[in-house]
Amino acid sequence: MTTEQDQWRELGQQLRVDSIRSSSAAGSGHPTSSMSAADLMAVLMSKFLHYDFGTPDDPRNDHLIFSKGHASPLLYAMYKAAGAISDDEMLTFRRFGSRIEGHPTPVLPWVDVATGSLGQGLPIAVGVALAGKRLDRLKYRVWCLCGDSEMAEGSMWEALEAAGHNKLDNLTAIIDVNRWGQTGETMHAWDLDAYRRRAEAFGWKAIEIDGHDVAAVDRALARAVETTGQPTVIIARTEKGHGVKAVSNLPGKHGKPLDDPEASIAELGGLRSIHVDVPKPTIAGTPHEFPTTALKLPIYEPGTKEATRKAFGDALVALGKARGEVVAIDGEVGNSTYTELFATALPDRFFQMYIAEQQMIATAVGMQVRGWKPFAVTFAAFLARAYDFVRMAAVSRANIAVAGSHAGVSIGEDGPSQMALEDLASYRAVHGSTVLYPSDPNQTAALVPQMADREGIVFMRTTREKLPVLYDPGEDFHIGGSRVVRATDDDAVTLIGAGITLHEALRAADQLAGEGITARVIDLYSVKPIDAETVRTAGRETGAIITVEDHWPEGGIGDAVLSALAEEESHPLVVKLAVRSMPGSGTPAELLAAAGIDADHIADAARELTGRAGARGRSKSEVGSGRRE
Amino acid sequence: MTTEQDQWRELGQQLRVDSIRSSSAAGSGHPTSSMSAADLMAVLMSKFLHYDFGTPDDPRNDHLIFSKGHASPLLYAMYKAAGAISDDEMLTFRRFGSRIEGHPTPVLPWVDVATGSLGQGLPIAVGVALAGKRLDRLKYRVWCLCGDSEMAEGSMWEALEAAGHNKLDNLTAIIDVNRWGQTGETMHAWDLDAYRRRAEAFGWKAIEIDGHDVAAVDRALARAVETTGQPTVIIARTEKGHGVKAVSNLPGKHGKPLDDPEASIAELGGLRSIHVDVPKPTIAGTPHEFPTTALKLPIYEPGTKEATRKAFGDALVALGKARGEVVAIDGEVGNSTYTELFATALPDRFFQMYIAEQQMIATAVGMQVRGWKPFAVTFAAFLARAYDFVRMAAVSRANIAVAGSHAGVSIGEDGPSQMALEDLASYRAVHGSTVLYPSDPNQTAALVPQMADREGIVFMRTTREKLPVLYDPGEDFHIGGSRVVRATDDDAVTLIGAGITLHEALRAADQLAGEGITARVIDLYSVKPIDAETVRTAGRETGAIITVEDHWPEGGIGDAVLSALAEEESHPLVVKLAVRSMPGSGTPAELLAAAGIDADHIADAARELTGRAGARGRSKSEVGSGRRE
Repeated sequence: MTTEQDQWRELGQQLRVDSIRSSSAAGSGHPTSSMSAADLMAVLMSKFLHYDFGTPDDPRNDHLIFSKGHASPLLYAMYKAAGAISDDEMLTFRRFGSRIEGHPTPVLPWVDVATGSLGQGLPIAVGVALAGKRLDRLKYRVWCLCGDSEMAEGSMWEALEAAGHNKLDNLTAIIDVNRWGQTGETMHAWDLDAYRRRAEAFGWKAIEIDGHDVAAVDRALARAVETTGQPTVIIARTEKGHGVKAVSNLPGKHGKPLDDPEASIAELGGLRSIHVDVPKPTIAGTPHEFPTTALKLPIYEPGTKEATRKAFGDALVALGKARGEVVAIDGEVGNSTYTELFATALPDRFFQMYIAEQQMIATAVGMQVRGWKPFAVTFAAFLARAYDFVRMAAVSRANIAVAGSHAGVSIGEDGPSQMALEDLASYRAVHGSTVLYPSDPNQTAALVPQMADREGIVFMRTTREKLPVLYDPGEDFHIGGSRVVRATDDDAVTLIGAGITLHEALRAADQLAGEGITARVIDLYSVKPIDAETVRTAGRETGAIITVEDHWPEGGIGDAVLSALAEEESHPLVVKLAVRSMPGSGTPAELLAAAGIDADHIADAARELTGRAGARGRSKSEVGSGRRE
Repeated sequence: MTTEQDQWRELGQQLRVDSIRSSSAAGSGHPTSSMSAADLMAVLMSKFLHYDFGTPDDPRNDHLIFSKGHASPLLYAMYKAAGAISDDEMLTFRRFGSRIEGHPTPVLPWVDVATGSLGQGLPIAVGVALAGKRLDRLKYRVWCLCGDSEMAEGSMWEALEAAGHNKLDNLTAIIDVNRWGQTGETMHAWDLDAYRRRAEAFGWKAIEIDGHDVAAVDRALARAVETTGQPTVIIARTEKGHGVKAVSNLPGKHGKPLDDPEASIAELGGLRSIHVDVPKPTIAGTPHEFPTTALKLPIYEPGTKEATRKAFGDALVALGKARGEVVAIDGEVGNSTYTELFATALPDRFFQMYIAEQQMIATAVGMQVRGWKPFAVTFAAFLARAYDFVRMAAVSRANIAVAGSHAGVSIGEDGPSQMALEDLASYRAVHGSTVLYPSDPNQTAALVPQMADREGIVFMRTTREKLPVLYDPGEDFHIGGSRVVRATDDDAVTLIGAGITLHEALRAADQLAGEGITARVIDLYSVKPIDAETVRTAGRETGAIITVEDHWPEGGIGDAVLSALAEEESHPLVVKLAVRSMPGSGTPAELLAAAGIDADHIADAARELTGRAGARGRSKSEVGSGRRE
């Protein structure tokens, strides 16, 4: 009669064998990094993980996140053992068209988030665990398999800190200390105490074990479940490539299939076909729902002034009251971004992540796993800190809203370290992203609810300075739209701005009008998707476009406009006004002028361009270019 | 007779008074965050900092980095006390045109690096300290003032880890634990032990003190100097706004001038005009110089194949042998990026930063402070992790080279987590940056030495796959150039690619040639600066351009080309081929095809576009557009 422990050991061998088989079939992959953690996962899936593979969206399911995403052969071997995928499908690992990708992605219904950029799984697991504690209020557990190499990522320590601070006893991290990184020994090799000291200092219960001793694994996981008031980390000493002499605990064996898979499989005792009945969730309850009232957006009176960052904060409160799934996540700047209003009005759905932007975005990604609608908010400049997390959030098919305040030189005296001047470019270049840059507080308020309903990464850039209210409350603005603020039948030039530069463009148009130059002015509040048709029409009708942005010249409004015009038969002249030298301190007006993006500079550019375009337009009109004159 | 301690206390008061004065003159700034650290800095500058303000580039100088850059009023007050700037200049704080900016930048000769994005000063200080130990081999010390709030940033723990691991006893961090963040209490408030436990776990000597007790500060700094074999952190309990009752140790006093500066100054004992004779450097020696030989670049024979990542690795070794100031910094992927060749050939100038990309870039920034030429290298996808550090490196006017391998879908089976598809966009949007994307190994080799001589952030994207050698060894390629690989007088379309897509474009041109469509092919290996003239000429002469990039459609090669064409009178039709859906795993060929950027898709696009452009071109030629036909 086989004991439970024998079964676990056998399952561990099967997971190793299958990791070898899939990576050998693929001709690439990370079998040795899978083999080290096989016993840990064998015990976990047999006894501690509560998960219904037939109902992956059961809110009572535990969550298992492979922070060391390159151990995907192990994860897929587990899915096979659990009966979630067939052996045949497992062996399509890394093939074109297969959902058994090189690193896990949510193309598979049991994968919460994409991993493979190391140091992200644990921070996201913290987000899921926070959702469990404070939003869902369900007793599911979050299990996170971490590599030892990735403990060098600062983001892991942001996660340790956040989990310790929030006493996330529903979270268990398992560090697979197999000693070898990609190119050599890790910083701490097999010094388990090094990890223990660090984790304990950050407020975690730490348990050191031999990761190939299934009895020890069992005891450690049981202790993790019993531990209250703090998260647990199991620090497991393992061997990379365990069980196969040719690769076990040797350097140079990272990220490649085994040389002799058949002999290795034989060494492991051959193929097995163990099926694991993964425990189903036993906890009771349904996700908590927060009470709501009807949506009542804030109103700003035309003629007054307000900053779009303030309107964002007001609108987020309104949205939160109307939509119970909306959550605000702050990077300790809530009095600047006005998420402090949300913190006051809806404290149960406000999360202070302190000055840890990677954890802030990871928290958002983790919470959307459970269907919450997170808004992660800080200065737009500091969002650059979490760019890899946003990149990976797109791979995770995550739906998160991100807002960045204090954009551009117009923040004034604080200087360039606080000025976001590359955020439009970096967020435009995220797959499936939306990039909004409202110019008016009522417009901001109209767009905020749409952020919650939009798929993908939805970014809003807001402005520090108070700006005149241009639009009436309740006017229609939608993602992908634009607003032609001024137009006549004989506009000589089009000025395109957004945010603070729209206001400069309007002032420039006033100047130009006094000189008989009529300018069309477009509010490009939706930078991506862009209202290409309005831009193209303006190009055709005016023949000359000036884009103005409080941003470096690359990748922002100007490039978005040019991209919309790329295939135009009759292409307008386009001049991009943008920030081209490193700003210092100064008043907003001084810095806008120094950057050449204030009304005076826009007007100057328009005078010069209309001269050129006029000459060109006359020539083109002779061949019927379709341009009105 | 005043004692030394009395003098320090008086100096502390002066630094507080001057912090109030400058921020009041500016109407903004962070006086209370300056006042907390004034006593710490008073003792430091009076006795322990060795710095010749008259000769800021003396290599024997200590380095003082304000990681809490918002305490700039304190830093400037110190400069005034040291006689480096006048009182009048100090009072130009935050004014337009003043070098006394809101946050410190190297516009001032005594500022090594820009700070103000929290969590960056200490990682950079680690880089300077590493340079002192292992490159300069001089016994200067590095002092770093840290805020307590910024200890939440993971990058700080990357720095703690790197400094502990490298036993940087020439580095002293001083944490100003004033308890209050921007919006409330920090995570650990005045729990000094929380910081001590963490720092000790990371291998540091930790000393807790009352940061307003100058005798204790003196003893702690003395112990830091005496400590060998490990870095020291002084954890100082302080009061934000210390010395002025109206603001001392109160919430809501962050980042604003005092309400009643005159009364506050009176409370502090009024104005003082203490001049501090900051100790000059006393250490002996000159910076170490590494022996060099003549530059001998690697050679690749046309007709063979090689990956540009390998050519980069080879060329970096060659450059390192010829240029003693060249340094390689790795993110634990040296066998993929081929910096392992540098590690073997020139181990003294190779720095393993493990999987900690923020610390990797910070190390580079720190080393260039001392005139070294660092090349920081990892997968291009993972460079996204350090984007805020690169953004700030530009504000620091840093000269660093960065290389990212494994770009685009053409890496194949590993899947999207490992594919850089936004790196061109994000690096183009860094101020003053250079973006290179070589298509050939000999070209790569020719460009690498130029990276060391170029100012600013110089990024090179390399390709995983082996590609045919196109160019002869020794051919001339320069930053800002391009190469017209094929051209005739009657080209019907221009194909622009770089890296792997250039090779697809060439294959497409072969296909098209068989159908009588002659295509110009441009190798746009310098994406920024772009060879605008060659692009414009091609546009004028062929009337139709197809850009092809293994990158998302936003912000990369296509947008760079469109930007170069923006003001063209006769604008070609431009079609951008790029990756438009989330890739999975597969072979490089499968994924290039699925993304629509392989030769077949390029040829298809060219057929379609030449149809359109031909019709248009005939019409335009009637009015003498200058296009050849």
